[in-house]
Amino acid sequence: MSGLLRPGAHRAAGIADDAAVLAALLRVEVAWARARAAAGAVGEAAAAKVAEAAGGLDIDVAALAVASEAAGNPVVPLVALLREAAGDAADAVHRGLTSQDVVDTALVLLARDAVVRLRADLVATGDALAGLARTHRDDPAVARTLTQWAVPTTFGLRAAQWLAGVADALARLDALTFPVQYGGAAGTRALLADPAATSTLAAELGLDAADLPWQTRRAQVTAIGDALTTATDALGVLAADVLLLGRPEIAEVREGAAPGRGGSSTMPHKQNPVLSVLVRAAAQQAPGLAAQLHLAAAGAVDERPDGAWHTEWPALARLLELAVTAGSQAAELVAGLQVDPAAMAARVAAATEAGTLDVRGDLDEAGRLVDVALARWEEIRG
Amino acid sequence: MSGLLRPGAHRAAGIADDAAVLAALLRVEVAWARARAAAGAVGEAAAAKVAEAAGGLDIDVAALAVASEAAGNPVVPLVALLREAAGDAADAVHRGLTSQDVVDTALVLLARDAVVRLRADLVATGDALAGLARTHRDDPAVARTLTQWAVPTTFGLRAAQWLAGVADALARLDALTFPVQYGGAAGTRALLADPAATSTLAAELGLDAADLPWQTRRAQVTAIGDALTTATDALGVLAADVLLLGRPEIAEVREGAAPGRGGSSTMPHKQNPVLSVLVRAAAQQAPGLAAQLHLAAAGAVDERPDGAWHTEWPALARLLELAVTAGSQAAELVAGLQVDPAAMAARVAAATEAGTLDVRGDLDEAGRLVDVALARWEEIRG
Amino acid sequence: MSGLLRPGAHRAAGIADDAAVLAALLRVEVAWARARAAAGAVGEAAAAKVAEAAGGLDIDVAALAVASEAAGNPVVPLVALLREAAGDAADAVHRGLTSQDVVDTALVLLARDAVVRLRADLVATGDALAGLARTHRDDPAVARTLTQWAVPTTFGLRAAQWLAGVADALARLDALTFPVQYGGAAGTRALLADPAATSTLAAELGLDAADLPWQTRRAQVTAIGDALTTATDALGVLAADVLLLGRPEIAEVREGAAPGRGGSSTMPHKQNPVLSVLVRAAAQQAPGLAAQLHLAAAGAVDERPDGAWHTEWPALARLLELAVTAGSQAAELVAGLQVDPAAMAARVAAATEAGTLDVRGDLDEAGRLVDVALARWEEIRG
Amino acid sequence: MSGLLRPGAHRAAGIADDAAVLAALLRVEVAWARARAAAGAVGEAAAAKVAEAAGGLDIDVAALAVASEAAGNPVVPLVALLREAAGDAADAVHRGLTSQDVVDTALVLLARDAVVRLRADLVATGDALAGLARTHRDDPAVARTLTQWAVPTTFGLRAAQWLAGVADALARLDALTFPVQYGGAAGTRALLADPAATSTLAAELGLDAADLPWQTRRAQVTAIGDALTTATDALGVLAADVLLLGRPEIAEVREGAAPGRGGSSTMPHKQNPVLSVLVRAAAQQAPGLAAQLHLAAAGAVDERPDGAWHTEWPALARLLELAVTAGSQAAELVAGLQVDPAAMAARVAAATEAGTLDVRGDLDEAGRLVDVALARWEEIRG
Repeated sequence: MSGLLRPGAHRAAGIADDAAVLAALLRVEVAWARARAAAGAVGEAAAAKVAEAAGGLDIDVAALAVASEAAGNPVVPLVALLREAAGDAADAVHRGLTSQDVVDTALVLLARDAVVRLRADLVATGDALAGLARTHRDDPAVARTLTQWAVPTTFGLRAAQWLAGVADALARLDALTFPVQYGGAAGTRALLADPAATSTLAAELGLDAADLPWQTRRAQVTAIGDALTTATDALGVLAADVLLLGRPEIAEVREGAAPGRGGSSTMPHKQNPVLSVLVRAAAQQAPGLAAQLHLAAAGAVDERPDGAWHTEWPALARLLELAVTAGSQAAELVAGLQVDPAAMAARVAAATEAGTLDVRGDLDEAGRLVDVALARWEEIRG
Repeated sequence: MSGLLRPGAHRAAGIADDAAVLAALLRVEVAWARARAAAGAVGEAAAAKVAEAAGGLDIDVAALAVASEAAGNPVVPLVALLREAAGDAADAVHRGLTSQDVVDTALVLLARDAVVRLRADLVATGDALAGLARTHRDDPAVARTLTQWAVPTTFGLRAAQWLAGVADALARLDALTFPVQYGGAAGTRALLADPAATSTLAAELGLDAADLPWQTRRAQVTAIGDALTTATDALGVLAADVLLLGRPEIAEVREGAAPGRGGSSTMPHKQNPVLSVLVRAAAQQAPGLAAQLHLAAAGAVDERPDGAWHTEWPALARLLELAVTAGSQAAELVAGLQVDPAAMAARVAAATEAGTLDVRGDLDEAGRLVDVALARWEEIRG
Repeated sequence: MSGLLRPGAHRAAGIADDAAVLAALLRVEVAWARARAAAGAVGEAAAAKVAEAAGGLDIDVAALAVASEAAGNPVVPLVALLREAAGDAADAVHRGLTSQDVVDTALVLLARDAVVRLRADLVATGDALAGLARTHRDDPAVARTLTQWAVPTTFGLRAAQWLAGVADALARLDALTFPVQYGGAAGTRALLADPAATSTLAAELGLDAADLPWQTRRAQVTAIGDALTTATDALGVLAADVLLLGRPEIAEVREGAAPGRGGSSTMPHKQNPVLSVLVRAAAQQAPGLAAQLHLAAAGAVDERPDGAWHTEWPALARLLELAVTAGSQAAELVAGLQVDPAAMAARVAAATEAGTLDVRGDLDEAGRLVDVALARWEEIRG
Repeated sequence: MSGLLRPGAHRAAGIADDAAVLAALLRVEVAWARARAAAGAVGEAAAAKVAEAAGGLDIDVAALAVASEAAGNPVVPLVALLREAAGDAADAVHRGLTSQDVVDTALVLLARDAVVRLRADLVATGDALAGLARTHRDDPAVARTLTQWAVPTTFGLRAAQWLAGVADALARLDALTFPVQYGGAAGTRALLADPAATSTLAAELGLDAADLPWQTRRAQVTAIGDALTTATDALGVLAADVLLLGRPEIAEVREGAAPGRGGSSTMPHKQNPVLSVLVRAAAQQAPGLAAQLHLAAAGAVDERPDGAWHTEWPALARLLELAVTAGSQAAELVAGLQVDPAAMAARVAAATEAGTLDVRGDLDEAGRLVDVALARWEEIRG
């Protein structure tokens, strides 16, 4: 699917593209050979040879993708190439694993890397929002409910709520686990030399151990999808609010300009809020992808399902790409956000004058809520 | 929407029907009057009168539903009725709240009740599955991958994996929080007499306190949806497996018969696996509903959004109903499940004979995996 | 699911509620008895007695819903009641039909009625939009792309595009067919006395004949869902535009006020655009429901599927309700829409002055596009 | 997104990959220059030079994708490259168009090509199914409802229903239109030299003319998504049935073997029904993508929306890829399908003997239904 139709996806380079997937698959195979060597099932030399062979493979990815169809997944043809390259260590390759062990573990590796990158961007986003909340803690603005002016609020509280959304997402990401998969042909670990092999495998890859195979139990995959979507939800609210508040008639905030960004193909005067548009678009796509993962989970029949599993891969890959891209865009968006407290104050005054703002009550508690959000952020950002 | 098109929904009576929603809305209004009395903002007598008025209301729910459209939600007309009934305590009703505080908190009450009921059914389901896993720990069966016979497994391991799925879901449910909502007109708590009021409100309702309003931050709502869907995913796998294993050509398990259940309108000989069908159907519906909640979350703009919030209610209500119904059906399904280990053993023998089963390896580890799943269940079931 | 959480759903009374579903199921059974009488398979007197019995049934719908679970659908218990009521004509009831014939045909009846009602509201909506397009054909307004001012347009063209969207939807609805279902126990029509019976059945019910049963072929159901969603898409754009243009900072249009509508539970000054909010919310819910119908269609295995079919009913029922409600709300919204061409003109002037509008070109073609849309509307509205 | 995670996607080469998207964008720009030349707005020589420049461009697609983010779409940077290459004909490039005109028309070109390819594969699939229906018109088989044996049917009727599903899909595809987009900066065609330019543009590209721009009216896009999903629905039923009927315990049909296809990474004896698995998986993914298109349509606000439009591209591109891939796989699947009427007959006999089949009635009508389906196919296949 063309990158030309996924603007910004280059920000997710290395997350779920061919090179990343191939590297992850090979990392699993190599780690497995090492785990078996550690268990004494193969020699250290053979494991080393497998690693060397994997490192030296010069794979035609397009051809490998074509070959993947016949087996239904890329592991079968990849193992053939790796065995050939491993020479007399061929027997040390993939023994006791099934394709699903490799694909699942590789996807978890990709997901873990994506979450690490997303987390960093969420922290940057949150830190910048914390700054805005602090700076504008007591700057009055109109609050809008159902599009209409309601009562006064502060821009600080608005920023604090965006921040709290990012904190919510961070908490969800931090609760994830990233387990290896090891079940063998049908989840029985029938050819397992050594019960410790799976924890060795996990240690090799920096992943969590799995006390049970999860070939037909996908709650850890759906948890990843749910958490990523919780992140894009929070970023989507932020982006959508920036879009509304940045409409020329409102003009209370403005997406920062950057050389060459936001231009129009026909109208030189225009400055389009491109980052906000793309982050908002990501937030509208993620829920469907997370739902696809749940549908896959609900259909994980037999000891390996007849299609449900296959629907998981592109959904997860696309969701990783979307979330990482949106996280990076959001961090840049917030870093450059231009805020106009004078415009906000003027609007409060005008609305008060017009009698279309309910000015009973005060904003003391709003300030305290900002403080609460800031304190919570410090706790969660780690 | 007619109950005739949602077979089994009577199992979720009291979860999200008119009576339950109305009761929850009134509980919130009464608890709020009490919280304000505790804070000294209104007199105890007035709060008591509000409670009495709420208890005595004889509401025409259909008329209230009609009246809900004009305000966009049922709280405005309900408050009018409650104020009228409260007589000289009318002023103690709803003061400082906004409609969203009431609707959100009421939905959390409903969700909490639903999760309590679902949890109980999951525990019953899990206990029964644990029994099956124990009983059939070493009973051989063919494992099927991509529909085809692969290697031997045990029925015990299959049951243990169903059990582990239920345990995964339980862990997700147990991590949920059920916060009150209190933000006032636009999340600023501008009319709050006493910062303690929100924790008093929470205590009154047995809900979690909320250090910040979450009117436009819906991660706790989406977390509920995600967890419920994780539960229906697990139950859906169980039901789908029962349907496959219960096909007459396979006949390794069979949904238990009950008087009057599973009959056909035309064919007296038929015994349809109705519970499994309905549980599986629920699992195919839940992901779309959870996605709807995320879409709502991603669109929660301004200080109250112009539509996104409204899409949340029917999706959450339907998801609560579906999950509670499926939980109840699954518990009954597992309790009555008929298992035929002899048929399984015969199939293993036939497949081995035919050379279509890979019988290298052994099932020792499969047995240990059963033990792992049983131990984990004991830990999680509480 | 409580009506309190679906504001406006009373507008869809009789579309998919208990009474409507029950009536539709009974209409099918009665029509079938008549069709068989016409074919000579049962006597006219027996058919008349079935009709009389159906008319006189006093059904406890809640009890019938409970009984529906055991059979997986409401037809089995309903037929039992009808047979009992039909006395010595019991044999003329349901003979040769299967439950699915009755449920499917009843759902098509409901869908047809819903489409008729929706169509009428779309015509009213379109006629009002045509009036706006004509009146404001040449009234200048700023066009906004990616939230920013771009070039001048006219309000007439904006209304004409809303109108064209309604016309698109109408064309989709008018292309639908509403076939009876008749296949017997498994789609073989094995007990069919007379090949003409299915067309007689269709004629009795005012539905389209079906040359083939479609028990596992749901393209006509998904077509209904797709067309309804095309309608809510168009109405959703209209509503979302009204919400944007009606923001107080923009104030180019305004949802009309009605006594008691749009009030806030806390802020007397507020006038919320409730109809727009609810129509927009409907448009955000319909796509997921249409997707559920496609998922059901894709899973229609065997001669009747094990769950996919059951997921279709609540999705279709809810979609019918949503679309009919949104159609009615949109018609009222457009009828009362307040348009402020002076505000639009002032904004064009201000933006031109500010140099943030590209005023090359002219609006001649815009006017012609309005004429095109109006002519197309006349053709399509019928 | 890696092709390794989308097995079979190479079948859709040229449909929505970088090369295809780039070529389509350039085709639109070139056709537009020609249309303007035909209208006399630019010289024929300039138009020819634009075409030549487009043909000679050596684009770094990855860099272009990166550059796409700044503008929010690939047209702005592509036009810059094209203008540079066009030398003194630079002024003839893109004049009067907006980015959306180019992206929309290019996507329609891709969609049209995809539909042409899918149609050819559906015809091949249908022809093969027609052959099966004819050959096995009267071969008895058990019909299964809710997984259980119900009554006898024929394999011919089953194949005829698969065929009728393909015919339904074909009819939907044949009703599609593929319009050019031309609206200029905001749908007013303000810079249009000549009203005929849009029909000239359509003629140049072999697309349908558009009497109105449809920048915020996406019913033709959703219609494409709906029709493609109707196709994957039909193919999904076929694939899912093959998977069920090909289970070793049922063994009434079998996916044909091909050298290297269906192998397992661990179990040499296995022959996995890979094509069926992948087609079924496609059918479970398409509904969510079609829903994404409807969500985009419902959110098409202003004169160009702030994100909704951007969500459309990857959803449509992926759906085109999925449908074309599934169509090709299904054609191959059906061509090689192995059918075992003896196994079917044996099962009918066994079930009859066991009293678990309702053998009242006859299969005469089933045969006639096959004939109906065959006749309808001849009509629709064209």
